[in-house]
Amino acid sequence: MSNLFWPGSERRGDQFTQEFFLESMVSVEAAWLAALVDVGIAPESARDRLLDLVGPPDIPAISLDAEAAGNPAVPLVALMRERLAVRNPDAARWLHRGLTSQDVVDSAVMILIREVVYRIRSEVRDQVDLLMRLADQHRATPMVARTLTQHAVPTTFGLKVALWLRGILEATDTRTTDRLCVQLGGAAGTMAATVELAGGPVVGVARALEVARRTAEILDLEWVPPWHTTRGAITALNDAGVRLVDAWGRIANDVLLLSRPEIGELSEGSPGGSSTMPHKRNPVLAAQIRRAALVVPGMSAAMHITAMESIDERAAGAWHAEWGILADIDRAVVVAAAQTTALLRDLQVHPDRMAATLAGSLPDVLSEQRTMAELVGRSPADDPRDYLGASEFLIDECLDRARSYLKASAVVHR
Amino acid sequence: MSNLFWPGSERRGDQFTQEFFLESMVSVEAAWLAALVDVGIAPESARDRLLDLVGPPDIPAISLDAEAAGNPAVPLVALMRERLAVRNPDAARWLHRGLTSQDVVDSAVMILIREVVYRIRSEVRDQVDLLMRLADQHRATPMVARTLTQHAVPTTFGLKVALWLRGILEATDTRTTDRLCVQLGGAAGTMAATVELAGGPVVGVARALEVARRTAEILDLEWVPPWHTTRGAITALNDAGVRLVDAWGRIANDVLLLSRPEIGELSEGSPGGSSTMPHKRNPVLAAQIRRAALVVPGMSAAMHITAMESIDERAAGAWHAEWGILADIDRAVVVAAAQTTALLRDLQVHPDRMAATLAGSLPDVLSEQRTMAELVGRSPADDPRDYLGASEFLIDECLDRARSYLKASAVVHR
Amino acid sequence: MSNLFWPGSERRGDQFTQEFFLESMVSVEAAWLAALVDVGIAPESARDRLLDLVGPPDIPAISLDAEAAGNPAVPLVALMRERLAVRNPDAARWLHRGLTSQDVVDSAVMILIREVVYRIRSEVRDQVDLLMRLADQHRATPMVARTLTQHAVPTTFGLKVALWLRGILEATDTRTTDRLCVQLGGAAGTMAATVELAGGPVVGVARALEVARRTAEILDLEWVPPWHTTRGAITALNDAGVRLVDAWGRIANDVLLLSRPEIGELSEGSPGGSSTMPHKRNPVLAAQIRRAALVVPGMSAAMHITAMESIDERAAGAWHAEWGILADIDRAVVVAAAQTTALLRDLQVHPDRMAATLAGSLPDVLSEQRTMAELVGRSPADDPRDYLGASEFLIDECLDRARSYLKASAVVHR
Amino acid sequence: MSNLFWPGSERRGDQFTQEFFLESMVSVEAAWLAALVDVGIAPESARDRLLDLVGPPDIPAISLDAEAAGNPAVPLVALMRERLAVRNPDAARWLHRGLTSQDVVDSAVMILIREVVYRIRSEVRDQVDLLMRLADQHRATPMVARTLTQHAVPTTFGLKVALWLRGILEATDTRTTDRLCVQLGGAAGTMAATVELAGGPVVGVARALEVARRTAEILDLEWVPPWHTTRGAITALNDAGVRLVDAWGRIANDVLLLSRPEIGELSEGSPGGSSTMPHKRNPVLAAQIRRAALVVPGMSAAMHITAMESIDERAAGAWHAEWGILADIDRAVVVAAAQTTALLRDLQVHPDRMAATLAGSLPDVLSEQRTMAELVGRSPADDPRDYLGASEFLIDECLDRARSYLKASAVVHR
Repeated sequence: MSNLFWPGSERRGDQFTQEFFLESMVSVEAAWLAALVDVGIAPESARDRLLDLVGPPDIPAISLDAEAAGNPAVPLVALMRERLAVRNPDAARWLHRGLTSQDVVDSAVMILIREVVYRIRSEVRDQVDLLMRLADQHRATPMVARTLTQHAVPTTFGLKVALWLRGILEATDTRTTDRLCVQLGGAAGTMAATVELAGGPVVGVARALEVARRTAEILDLEWVPPWHTTRGAITALNDAGVRLVDAWGRIANDVLLLSRPEIGELSEGSPGGSSTMPHKRNPVLAAQIRRAALVVPGMSAAMHITAMESIDERAAGAWHAEWGILADIDRAVVVAAAQTTALLRDLQVHPDRMAATLAGSLPDVLSEQRTMAELVGRSPADDPRDYLGASEFLIDECLDRARSYLKASAVVHR
Repeated sequence: MSNLFWPGSERRGDQFTQEFFLESMVSVEAAWLAALVDVGIAPESARDRLLDLVGPPDIPAISLDAEAAGNPAVPLVALMRERLAVRNPDAARWLHRGLTSQDVVDSAVMILIREVVYRIRSEVRDQVDLLMRLADQHRATPMVARTLTQHAVPTTFGLKVALWLRGILEATDTRTTDRLCVQLGGAAGTMAATVELAGGPVVGVARALEVARRTAEILDLEWVPPWHTTRGAITALNDAGVRLVDAWGRIANDVLLLSRPEIGELSEGSPGGSSTMPHKRNPVLAAQIRRAALVVPGMSAAMHITAMESIDERAAGAWHAEWGILADIDRAVVVAAAQTTALLRDLQVHPDRMAATLAGSLPDVLSEQRTMAELVGRSPADDPRDYLGASEFLIDECLDRARSYLKASAVVHR
Repeated sequence: MSNLFWPGSERRGDQFTQEFFLESMVSVEAAWLAALVDVGIAPESARDRLLDLVGPPDIPAISLDAEAAGNPAVPLVALMRERLAVRNPDAARWLHRGLTSQDVVDSAVMILIREVVYRIRSEVRDQVDLLMRLADQHRATPMVARTLTQHAVPTTFGLKVALWLRGILEATDTRTTDRLCVQLGGAAGTMAATVELAGGPVVGVARALEVARRTAEILDLEWVPPWHTTRGAITALNDAGVRLVDAWGRIANDVLLLSRPEIGELSEGSPGGSSTMPHKRNPVLAAQIRRAALVVPGMSAAMHITAMESIDERAAGAWHAEWGILADIDRAVVVAAAQTTALLRDLQVHPDRMAATLAGSLPDVLSEQRTMAELVGRSPADDPRDYLGASEFLIDECLDRARSYLKASAVVHR
Repeated sequence: MSNLFWPGSERRGDQFTQEFFLESMVSVEAAWLAALVDVGIAPESARDRLLDLVGPPDIPAISLDAEAAGNPAVPLVALMRERLAVRNPDAARWLHRGLTSQDVVDSAVMILIREVVYRIRSEVRDQVDLLMRLADQHRATPMVARTLTQHAVPTTFGLKVALWLRGILEATDTRTTDRLCVQLGGAAGTMAATVELAGGPVVGVARALEVARRTAEILDLEWVPPWHTTRGAITALNDAGVRLVDAWGRIANDVLLLSRPEIGELSEGSPGGSSTMPHKRNPVLAAQIRRAALVVPGMSAAMHITAMESIDERAAGAWHAEWGILADIDRAVVVAAAQTTALLRDLQVHPDRMAATLAGSLPDVLSEQRTMAELVGRSPADDPRDYLGASEFLIDECLDRARSYLKASAVVHR
């Protein structure tokens, strides 16, 4: 997906595209219809694959009618039913029965989010792998630690990388898939229509639930009770995404700073150039990762506003606001995920410059050591490498944690 | 522009599309080249219309290369120069000379914003006109005033509408066009390249400024000194937009509430329906306006973050974040503008229901009157219409202000 | 703590007060000094309780000097050392050795957050208990379900309450205490000073870690490696708080709406009044809970900005921004927590008004039922209670989940 | 006002303190009562100064009762009336007549905001003055311009300062005082109670308006029609504050960067130190200014949410949220204003380091010049000072604008 306003958008693939949204809404209708037949509520004659009924060329018409309807599911169902009536009247009759628009849209959005979660998990696994190697490789590469912009004491580039890694591990929540769930509640979350179709209050409840669970199974989402007015699953998933963007932004900040010519301790593998200033080596990936980290928190505040503004059995406005803002946030997050992996893969480390900075910072950079040594009667150090504290241990602790993460985070093959 | 994630997007027209962004960047290059020739810096042979060199089919390639370059202007200029070399080598040689990517992108973004400003102004004028009529028409339509959800004292629907109108007038800033300005500073905002082309420090400064002013004139934007690292013009324009969305959201809130069946004092002209619940009259436009008002504040906080994160003579990340977030905000704002006009145009007012609520609220709704009357020895009122205070005066004051606004806000014919 | 700007602040107790912050910073110094002695690095003569050295009267002076120092730990340590020098020179010599200001401030902030977490957990447990009873009690209290402001189908107040409860359970994260952790990294997170004091690189690492772990034990916080530049623990804790506020706000929205005189299905136990309008029954608690939900998301976006702006081995600005914004957010969150408990404790339910609304909505409210019944050849229902779907099951499912939560969430006795 | 969570708070003085809020609410009551008497509605015997009736010791009780009432004006009026009844029964009888709580709170908040506006204006004037001198003094101090973190072309420190100045001027809105206005609408914004007191619909409207205008005059605020549900004045004032914070943050970013030891082109006059690292020269003021710029945008998004959530004739929740968040924002803004003035007053400029960086960047930093010179047949430059473009002109343009601002912005002597 090209986007002149957000370079790098091609990395996003078909995450959260209108085409995938349409396809996912149809998948939800298809799964539900199949479940109705499977459970024996709808007749076998109502079975229909549905997936070929509509496609990308229908998007303009559905989108146009979505305003008057309030959401895209209404015109989608109308169009599907119209086309289905020709080839399979029973399917047309049973299509969408028991569902409400929010069921279709929310479950479809969860399919979209699931793919984002899988994509981000895959990027994070690559990042963890790259960072583990980098931390290990540079566990003994000394550099100056900077606090509040000033030189403080010695550290190693390996420990800095371990902190980058730690930031990502902290932000990664392996439980997120538990929250990828269907929304199947009917008009007001009581499942009343499905219960009615399934035989009424006495016998219908169990069968209606069976339909819902079967639908979830077909869609490969969790079944949970209707959550039409409790949006905590979506905000929790989104919050986890923001924390990852924070972690990537934090890495980008270090790369941007350490790529400055006055420091020169890092550089991007393929920096951007300038036609009239051929010496320029702009850290373009880091700049674009940082871009995401600057805007995602504000956009995500909007997600919480939509959650807190839930009311009644379906909110007017708060619900409608979710889809667009999620798509916008997704663009920023997925592109940043991929750009961070790319940045780390080709990151150029310059131990010579790190060593030079550190040497130039002597003896100040060992002043704390002298104070401490004096207190306990030890000798003053001359070599910054003698004042690295527990840095090796701390790197190893982080590598251990990373290994645990890699084990715990299932690889999803699709 | 269809958008399944944001129904109503068709109302947006080509505001902030990639196509228009591309066209605007080309317009900036064309204006600059023309100005270089006009001022006599580039030869007449370098004159070229440029506008036909690239078009929508080039977007994917430019977008793809924009990531490595950091922005879309770099690959655009490369492509234009390559094609120009064939038909007009002198133009190819002079293309973009004196400009930097940020000049092209920022000035183009201002062209995009200008069209948004004009569109919003046009919608606001229509809204003001509709609200003036509605306020005047209902200046004597009594209804209950509600404070903290409870019935308080009588008011009129005309005064409520006057407050809606006042909200829009407050938010409207007739000076915004002053801030629609070119960015023409060269590599670091010193205009050094253009001064060099114009003959160097001694004679070139005046001529370089002439080029910049001529470019602004061609583009119909203001000339101001380079603002590459002061983003107050863009944030001020955006803040004004947020205040308008606040005002529209406030109207939508009242419509949503007063359309509830228990109240029924207002309804939308074309409410949304439901296939299985034919009695439903969903206030879909108000819901979609409210949607915008819920998300725009958070997104706009991100704009301020990009402004405050300016640094150096061009910020890495903060600058890059602006384009995408502006496009996202624009979608919400322009669609809400148009939907608000549509909502007001067809708003159904039910004075009978207003009267019934008010009658049902007697005698409580006149309890304050009794307290006041007693204090000054006046008679208790029986009719809520006798306790409307200065409402007529306040309506007229607002109508006066609205008339002034309509006079002051230039109609732009395009 | 009185606060005219935020009524209800007295409910906050001493959460996040300056006094408690001061006390917590001293506790961190005390725990560290004790650990240094316990591990045998500092002499027994350096043992000192410290806690009586400074107190609330010292706040103005420490606060004043905190600006020049950049944080309050620097003047605090200076003051403590000065006073300690008189009564215990050895303690004065060993005070703060191995620590940096960020260690003291971050660990103290975690103590403050811990008390907030415990307080909120206690409120949530009370809320869960109240909501369980309410859901159970009203499992058969029919009312109309409202979607997009319009009457849809029947539901029960018990199911509405179950959704409120579900919202809180979704937002509650029982793992939060894992993230309550010390920060003990020294000048740049390498623990170098402590390692030096503990005998240098060869023998000192294990002993330095022992000091850190012992300090954590004394403070009753988790030991984790230094997180000076990865702020995911704090943002995750805060995000969980925002989700709770969203859930409380969502309850408040329903209460505000259903307390409207035109609906009258709920009311607060002690609504606010008006001297001249004695009939007013303002839902003041719900209004004040909603107040928090409206502002916390934006404030929390700021927390993510501070996290993403981490850089170097200590960020200039991003770190400094955390303390104040956390204190502001805490005020909103803790007061809303307590007000929600109070609101639920005294909530007045009016089943008669619910029944009347529902009756008045017939036959529309059963139109969906008729469509469904017709499709499967069942009879049309006359009684809304025959169209409640799986509502009882869904209530029970939620009650089960609530019971699990109450079991899993440890009660902290303090 | 000490604040361990926000060092530098002492600079705030009594801006937005609870004490000043209380005093301002009393001032509003006093002005209104005086106006009622002045206009001849209340008897001369009701005249009372009021200001001595309550004071800081009453804050805890008023704050405590404010929750049940929903706002602090209700218990304040009750307390005042109780005390007044003893010494002046007529005044007690007429106190607050015609007003509603929102009138008192909103007008008082405007008094608080006015003092903030005056304070900020005073700081801005000082900043403009300091920046004008600095820009002029360094108009010929060459330094390297940095774009996207890399060295680009030469510029001058004077031009950088001119951009800082331009950022502040852009953000400064001399019209803000127009928006400092009373809110005097009575129970629902109709002024009905006052009209009743003034003689009823026929003769009372003009006299009621006279009371309102007289009150505004006494309070030195503008009179505008009631704005109880249109909050554009407050959000516009706040937006202007955010833009100033953006401008200050942008300056702080440059100071933080250029104070890094690897660059060393700027330093703070009184940097912060470290006991064990005596070489540290932490840019503490810049860090603390940046702190404000990071958090204010998110907090201000909350202000827009409260504005958009207006509804009815008084919003439940949205109105209540304003006071606290405004106080929080004020703390950040006023402290940052004062710290920026202090930072600029003592800023240390190191032209030698600037010159050294520039020299070290040769010949790259002149590569653009060579390309341009070649195009027009001019000689390559050797000296960066020969490639400064229109920088002097641009500085002068900015100084002119600054002079205009200083003339236009009235100095308020208080």
